[in-house]
Amino acid sequence: MYDVQAIRRDFPILSRQVNGKPLVYLDNGASAQKPQVVIDAIAQAYSMEYANVHRGLHYLSNLATDKYEAVRGIVRRFLNAGHEDEILFNSGTTEGINLVSYGWAAPRMQAGDEIVLSVMEHHANIVPWHFLRERQGVKLVWVEPEADGSLDPARVLAAITPKTKLVAVTHMSNVLGTVVDIKTIAAGCRARGVPILADGSQSAVHMPVDVQDLGVDFYPITGHKLYGPSGSGAIYITRERQAEMRPFIGGGDMIKEVTRDDVIYNDPPHKFEAGTPGIVQQIGLGVALDYMMGLGMETIAAHERALASYARERLKGLNWLNVQGDAPGKGGIFSFTMNNGAHAHDISTVLDKKGVAVRAGQHCTGPLMEHLGINASCRASFALYNTEAEVDALIEALEFCHDLFG
Amino acid sequence: MYDVQAIRRDFPILSRQVNGKPLVYLDNGASAQKPQVVIDAIAQAYSMEYANVHRGLHYLSNLATDKYEAVRGIVRRFLNAGHEDEILFNSGTTEGINLVSYGWAAPRMQAGDEIVLSVMEHHANIVPWHFLRERQGVKLVWVEPEADGSLDPARVLAAITPKTKLVAVTHMSNVLGTVVDIKTIAAGCRARGVPILADGSQSAVHMPVDVQDLGVDFYPITGHKLYGPSGSGAIYITRERQAEMRPFIGGGDMIKEVTRDDVIYNDPPHKFEAGTPGIVQQIGLGVALDYMMGLGMETIAAHERALASYARERLKGLNWLNVQGDAPGKGGIFSFTMNNGAHAHDISTVLDKKGVAVRAGQHCTGPLMEHLGINASCRASFALYNTEAEVDALIEALEFCHDLFG
Repeated sequence: MYDVQAIRRDFPILSRQVNGKPLVYLDNGASAQKPQVVIDAIAQAYSMEYANVHRGLHYLSNLATDKYEAVRGIVRRFLNAGHEDEILFNSGTTEGINLVSYGWAAPRMQAGDEIVLSVMEHHANIVPWHFLRERQGVKLVWVEPEADGSLDPARVLAAITPKTKLVAVTHMSNVLGTVVDIKTIAAGCRARGVPILADGSQSAVHMPVDVQDLGVDFYPITGHKLYGPSGSGAIYITRERQAEMRPFIGGGDMIKEVTRDDVIYNDPPHKFEAGTPGIVQQIGLGVALDYMMGLGMETIAAHERALASYARERLKGLNWLNVQGDAPGKGGIFSFTMNNGAHAHDISTVLDKKGVAVRAGQHCTGPLMEHLGINASCRASFALYNTEAEVDALIEALEFCHDLFG
Repeated sequence: MYDVQAIRRDFPILSRQVNGKPLVYLDNGASAQKPQVVIDAIAQAYSMEYANVHRGLHYLSNLATDKYEAVRGIVRRFLNAGHEDEILFNSGTTEGINLVSYGWAAPRMQAGDEIVLSVMEHHANIVPWHFLRERQGVKLVWVEPEADGSLDPARVLAAITPKTKLVAVTHMSNVLGTVVDIKTIAAGCRARGVPILADGSQSAVHMPVDVQDLGVDFYPITGHKLYGPSGSGAIYITRERQAEMRPFIGGGDMIKEVTRDDVIYNDPPHKFEAGTPGIVQQIGLGVALDYMMGLGMETIAAHERALASYARERLKGLNWLNVQGDAPGKGGIFSFTMNNGAHAHDISTVLDKKGVAVRAGQHCTGPLMEHLGINASCRASFALYNTEAEVDALIEALEFCHDLFG
């Protein structure tokens, strides 16, 4: 039994008001709120257990190192990676994809080589590839979603040519809520000898993820969306791909030996983790993932499925609202515009007055916005602590807004 | 009047014991402990004021954005930069120097171009330049310190040739405690038309820094050494140098527009800050810098000068101890070996049993270790909360250790 009210009490911010109304936080796609256990773990780390990691031999340093390194095992379990050393720590998906771009792709791609992307990628999974286009003449090949927002695996695979060096697609659209069939795409990529990166920023928040079953080479996640601290994160990279990578960020910890004339790099995963890491953030991320796994990823997914289904029905009842994307099995992310042409920014401002926090803008998805023929939209994105009553509050606020703007 | 006992009460961890002894934390060069105001600010941010920044228009997002962006002004004041947009946020010095290497140096350096470094640089200020050597044939030119550990500005300037594109030297050695006369070096660099990066990781912790007065182009700092959260940081880069840089990390927030075929980058400083940043860490960093400025950087420096002077005298009294570095005006960082050949790791382990936390190893300074002819050393590094009684505890523990190892 999923007791959402009990779960809500784990998140202190959910009891606050904004603009004199109870907070209805539906901006989870941008960042999720944090349970008290995460906040407490951070305070405990700084108050009683803090030192730098890997570098000291004293009690606090050993303690902090043990707690920090234990998170690698937690992330491994969370993603069902085969080995702990396939988990690299970083500050989130943006850094993770840049690591792949600079460390794996840049040294192995020539002018004319191709990267297949979907049109609904987040800028974090676009701009690092644009760098390779600008700097090395790599060609970006775009795959469009279907009319309902789904992404046809056959279309992705059909875009692969002998020049294709990488397929990089999201596992879940941050705008349309589409869940992409990565397993089928990855199998097709493997058959063609093309590595695949699946962007797990949104998906890992809402469903059980098994990177081995998916068959991906690269799978970045973002801690702050996973109820963990800002600046926390990790990326799964198979041993095979790591062996092909050169280091990205240079500094302490990622080396074995540095002389005036030479440098010998450390073994993976440390080769790809330079300098003092986000020690306490990563410890907090471990607590957040344990919190999610404690609730059960299947259980969370079931709650959110029911919530998304309810939200979908209620939003459909507003015949002046255009919801972008209705792919089968889509998750609890609803982007929308109004028939009356009200600007997304104005809508979100009005909703905010009612205590309802949604995002408005391009959602870091320029190509998708262009494809949809819109400049901006509002987005309501749900999390494990949201309720049907909050869906109702959203609907009520939207109706008020529609009345206001005529 | 500097009331160090009152200040110690601001740092909860300082009241704890390790191995049954009161903690004597002398590993500040690796990372500093956090005052309660920083820990409270983090908890407050996550408990009541959290959302993603720059991206939302709702109340919490605006609140978090305001608090986050206000830190830019705090860092500007801390470093006396001329403009807020000369402060770029990141996760610390390692990322900061990599930004300079990838964003400024890589696109403008050819094979045979030279970078002048001192032999006492930290790996964070070496490995990013080794990347350019390995990948682009850039030549690293090394300047040795004097016998007492000081760095002669004339030697640094004499190493500059028409091929020199950058001088990158530490402002304060993390091993020798040497404070480098950056102002003289920077003036010489300017006269020769060569930009200068000064590594502020250690220096900014212990003395007032004025980047305009120093005359540097690049000045990275590290939040976790400045009593701030892990994963926080910033780099000062002049507008002139920023204008010459290409973006480093690609993703959201650092762009104005992204299409399938093109990308238009954001204006500095955001051009160099991609994706969701370390929101709460940076807010915590702001509180930490305000805490330091509240005490007064001159006041802190005076306390530490007195402490370093006392430590220097007491350590000198141990005629079986070799302290590396005794430059005039050196700060409170003392690295040492024992005449009896006891290994640094063993020494630090024994000290730890007495509650004294020091670091042992290479201190991320391979070339300096080679120059000194040692494999490793112990390092006791002092902070604003350390006391003469803690110096005494160090001495006592060292004497015990010396007796133990004969």
